[in-house]
Amino acid sequence: MNQKTRANLIIGQSGGATAVINASFVGAFEEALKNEYIGGIYGMLHGIEGLLKEDIIDLRQQPADLWSRLINTPSAALGSCRYKLQEGDPERALDILRSYNIHYVIYIGGNDSADTAHQLALAARHAGYELQAISVPKTIDNDLPFTDHCPGYGSAARFIALATMDSTMNTVSIPWHYPVKVIETMGRNAGWLAASSTLGKRDENDPPHILILPERSFNADQYLEQVEAIYRRLGYAIVVVSEAVKDEQGKPLGAVGQVGNDAFQHPLLSGAAQYLVELVKQHLQLRARFDKPGDLQRMASNCISTTDQREAYQVGAMGVRALLAGESDKMVTLIRHTEPEYHCSTGLVELAHIANEQRIMPDNYLDERKTMVTQAFYDYALPLIGEPLPRHAVLDKTRIQR
Amino acid sequence: MNQKTRANLIIGQSGGATAVINASFVGAFEEALKNEYIGGIYGMLHGIEGLLKEDIIDLRQQPADLWSRLINTPSAALGSCRYKLQEGDPERALDILRSYNIHYVIYIGGNDSADTAHQLALAARHAGYELQAISVPKTIDNDLPFTDHCPGYGSAARFIALATMDSTMNTVSIPWHYPVKVIETMGRNAGWLAASSTLGKRDENDPPHILILPERSFNADQYLEQVEAIYRRLGYAIVVVSEAVKDEQGKPLGAVGQVGNDAFQHPLLSGAAQYLVELVKQHLQLRARFDKPGDLQRMASNCISTTDQREAYQVGAMGVRALLAGESDKMVTLIRHTEPEYHCSTGLVELAHIANEQRIMPDNYLDERKTMVTQAFYDYALPLIGEPLPRHAVLDKTRIQR
Repeated sequence: MNQKTRANLIIGQSGGATAVINASFVGAFEEALKNEYIGGIYGMLHGIEGLLKEDIIDLRQQPADLWSRLINTPSAALGSCRYKLQEGDPERALDILRSYNIHYVIYIGGNDSADTAHQLALAARHAGYELQAISVPKTIDNDLPFTDHCPGYGSAARFIALATMDSTMNTVSIPWHYPVKVIETMGRNAGWLAASSTLGKRDENDPPHILILPERSFNADQYLEQVEAIYRRLGYAIVVVSEAVKDEQGKPLGAVGQVGNDAFQHPLLSGAAQYLVELVKQHLQLRARFDKPGDLQRMASNCISTTDQREAYQVGAMGVRALLAGESDKMVTLIRHTEPEYHCSTGLVELAHIANEQRIMPDNYLDERKTMVTQAFYDYALPLIGEPLPRHAVLDKTRIQR
Repeated sequence: MNQKTRANLIIGQSGGATAVINASFVGAFEEALKNEYIGGIYGMLHGIEGLLKEDIIDLRQQPADLWSRLINTPSAALGSCRYKLQEGDPERALDILRSYNIHYVIYIGGNDSADTAHQLALAARHAGYELQAISVPKTIDNDLPFTDHCPGYGSAARFIALATMDSTMNTVSIPWHYPVKVIETMGRNAGWLAASSTLGKRDENDPPHILILPERSFNADQYLEQVEAIYRRLGYAIVVVSEAVKDEQGKPLGAVGQVGNDAFQHPLLSGAAQYLVELVKQHLQLRARFDKPGDLQRMASNCISTTDQREAYQVGAMGVRALLAGESDKMVTLIRHTEPEYHCSTGLVELAHIANEQRIMPDNYLDERKTMVTQAFYDYALPLIGEPLPRHAVLDKTRIQR
């Protein structure tokens, strides 16, 4: 865009919401507000799906006190979508953007949303319409490539770490009641979120004891052997499983609970933990049960990582600066620095390299069996979850000698 | 007890742990510490079950900085049990208490634990052993009679209220993805905890829309009719179900997931939400899924109600004062006052009136169909959950007129 012409900007949110996706939205809005070359600042309701229906709102008309409150509000305030562009959609979207004099698009989302932004940019180039589209990363799954990590992950990881610490204290207080407990996390094809359950672990005996991650095909015999060994040593065992783990035949553990496919053909599962509980009950004759925090893990307003929230704001603001610097068809990335202490700067990567690619956990973050993390993972993940986790008090249990 | 004789005190914790059961423990310990007539201050590990094995620790030997940290630590730090006294157990327990010169017992727990304390007091009276036993209430189920409410409930209610507010914002951001969501709470035979999911509801259309409580037998036709009506009006419906709801034949909804019985013969369920999800999928052909926060709802260290924590400390301390005043075979109760503002004093009730009795929700806290609470419930429950719940920001969604 010619920087001397005023043009309108539209912002959208897409994919599974997070506890900080609104921080990126506010970051983009407040950065746009500072710049005289941005005229209208619009929002598309429910992402591209709403844009195609002309469900557009004027963000300059919102009450002034909204924005500071929105930063701490989980979920996608604009509404979200999981819509895969159909033939003719990009051209129809361009017609609508043109009719509103919109030349800037900020699209906040994960892999599939990056693909949508890419398709819009391609269609505009093909049609000769001056449009710049920047994708702003967001996903609790932390599976976007080319970025050190993804906004949304730090808060969800904090939730899972704390939930594992807190909820398993019930097992510890009365281990023989339900000696085996399985916690199911989200995470699609990457184990980042399930692995974050270890972040409050200070000792080998602290929960969780076994991670079941999509980075390795599930083997029932090895699993039962590990559960039994830990049970014999401690009197209980805590397992954390990622919802989309598959067995050696490629069949999802939770296939029993399979409830359909979303528009992107990812299987939607609900039964991995239940399956692992049944295995233990049937083969080890131990009482077992599962927790499944579900949507709460990505939406908990009292578990937001301050680091994650700050970075989510930062990538939103940097998306708008990239547009004003003439960039398009790119995603904002986070670049980690460790000197003098942990902080992130931002970069840009071509959307053509991103779309639909997933980053799983590297081998050096996991032990040989891929059922526990290594120190390298702690070094990677601890700075992302904000304030240090609490240290719960433990009694000295030395028995009185009569 | 003769107040001029020094005697030893022992404290135990029993039943399902809560986020504030340690606050009662600290309250009892610190009150005992103040009194010169109390000699040894002991702890039984894993309640009566540990006492019978002489698993006893000396609480005066714990590091001094422990107690202030323990107040904020969820779960039963002494360990818990779910043990029903067998023939001969009370006499065996008395022998052990006698050998340690223990004449005071504080037993922190719910209905079943009150029964244990009562059996100990009865056996001592029968044996002519000078023993005073006081029960300190604790249960997230809020189902103890004769007390306005139970320590532990306020924090669990805060968790469920906030979890319902936060997690359902994901449904609101993209209703057509999973239009029906079911959240399963704990609560045995009373709906107090499931009902607390409404405490963040400020408008009829806010989630949750339907409560399925044990106070009424479940009727599938009525349920499906209600879900469908709300879905037609809003495009989505949020249901909260208490884990132990039964159908009109008295069969638990979650019987599929039944995994055994505990020592008190209460059925242990895990499948009520799953059953309600399946009903919706099969009969309404709507996509539905469930969240089941499980143990986290009673153990979340970042969701402790300040009011609940203060009252838990208060009943623990008052238990020791009751012992020193010569009381025995009683449970501490909370008595509500509303002038000049909400606060509680404490009372005492005979354990013989408590044991194994459960208090369900009164009719005037529920509407006619018993699927939603009334204002009377808000007036009852809101003071218990501590600080006001957050108000999440909402965009004005007036569409731009071209």
